[in-house]
Amino acid sequence: MKISKWHGLGNDFILTELSKSSSFDIRGAVERLCDRHFGVGADGVVTIRHLSGNAFEMRIYNADGTEPEMCGNATRCVGLYIKRRMLARGDEFELRTKGGIVRPKVLENGTVRVDMGEPRLLRGEIPVAGNPAEQAREVKLRADGRDFTAFCVSMGNPHAVIFVPDIEAVELEKWGPVLECDPQFPKKINVEFVEVRSPGMVRMRVWERGCGITMACGTGSCATAVAGHLSGRTGSCVTVLLDGGELLVEHSAADNHVYMTGPAVEVFRGELVEKI
Amino acid sequence: MKISKWHGLGNDFILTELSKSSSFDIRGAVERLCDRHFGVGADGVVTIRHLSGNAFEMRIYNADGTEPEMCGNATRCVGLYIKRRMLARGDEFELRTKGGIVRPKVLENGTVRVDMGEPRLLRGEIPVAGNPAEQAREVKLRADGRDFTAFCVSMGNPHAVIFVPDIEAVELEKWGPVLECDPQFPKKINVEFVEVRSPGMVRMRVWERGCGITMACGTGSCATAVAGHLSGRTGSCVTVLLDGGELLVEHSAADNHVYMTGPAVEVFRGELVEKI
Repeated sequence: MKISKWHGLGNDFILTELSKSSSFDIRGAVERLCDRHFGVGADGVVTIRHLSGNAFEMRIYNADGTEPEMCGNATRCVGLYIKRRMLARGDEFELRTKGGIVRPKVLENGTVRVDMGEPRLLRGEIPVAGNPAEQAREVKLRADGRDFTAFCVSMGNPHAVIFVPDIEAVELEKWGPVLECDPQFPKKINVEFVEVRSPGMVRMRVWERGCGITMACGTGSCATAVAGHLSGRTGSCVTVLLDGGELLVEHSAADNHVYMTGPAVEVFRGELVEKI
Repeated sequence: MKISKWHGLGNDFILTELSKSSSFDIRGAVERLCDRHFGVGADGVVTIRHLSGNAFEMRIYNADGTEPEMCGNATRCVGLYIKRRMLARGDEFELRTKGGIVRPKVLENGTVRVDMGEPRLLRGEIPVAGNPAEQAREVKLRADGRDFTAFCVSMGNPHAVIFVPDIEAVELEKWGPVLECDPQFPKKINVEFVEVRSPGMVRMRVWERGCGITMACGTGSCATAVAGHLSGRTGSCVTVLLDGGELLVEHSAADNHVYMTGPAVEVFRGELVEKI
């Protein structure tokens, strides 16, 4: 099996291509592949299948075997993969994910700009408990005896964005797992703590659903930009500083789409030797 | 740069071959290569250089850039690598390491038996403080208010083997770092806690110098077998049960050499894409 390993700001993936007719179910092998001592080692496995023209199916599996709807960092890697392997013409591709369609475009400087589509703000869409037709801009949460207010957004996967005055004071490893499983979130949630440094720059740390603390979260950065923009804390275009590096996110007034721009790095390409 | 990733009982390495004339100094790249998110990811990097006939030079670098004398798990991987790539004739090879010469032999069932040479027992050889011409069979140590007695052996690298009645009661993460740096060990030491289950079987857990707790240590298993044999706790041949699997170690009466037998697994082979 041919593989390559990629990362987006330290969030690393094993990419593998499936043929159109392949019925290979990779799920049974994901845990072994992601094992960092006995396997290849990665946060997740991404499969790509060419559908037609510039359209591809993309699936992502976490190291624990679960399948999240979407992963922003992986969409940049997949965009650059398609371009490098010349699987389709041009620089712009369509990825059909479980969380919706996104469109990566490889820029001239090698970074990737992804049209992540429109944010979903309704409780029924995210999902958050309560009236499904209402937004969830001020969800009251509690962890470790402290009160929090979250702005909830779905970018294909659910996020709770919590603005704080001081990111260094956030006890992410303590609060994250409690907030992730708050009963108001029927599918659990990704938790972003955000300190606004200026209208064009925020510092963000993330607790990812099913993963814990990670160095970067692409969809979380998008959710943060949307929450900042809609709540008036930031402008429509913001640089998000993450533990693993930075992303530029724009919440466009023109089409209400979210555009995420950042790096994608191919570390190695190779072939598995042991059967998985 | 061509690489392959291997593991011996979960202790994983990036192997790369250097040409005879290569003056490439890999040390500067080791930390990046071993990084599990931004790089290939491994416990260490192993370089192999063909000298002549069946003789090879092997060097190993830890993820932190330090260079240990020797690594038992890596010698099995290198043996199978040479055989698979047909770099020399036959099944038996000579590896010249910083800790001495060892001789892996690939067995018919695919496991690898390594002649690790003679154990070194003198304080001056290991090294342990005190009279350099004396053995170090009962070194008194103290950590966390507890007393320990260690049987010290060098297998090219230094080991302190501590026999305990109950391996489950060992607080390795607490005692290991203290014992590693005991002032009696001028080059620090690897610490093995060992519960004897029968004369032919022991359970061992290891604190590796510069690494901390690891799933397996080949030279530590050899040191354990020697200490068990010479102290009369075990016979000359012992199965060592490690967190990552098991090894068979024989301390031969015929030639005083230590023979370690166990698996070596090639996970993938590939080529780096990003410059290191």
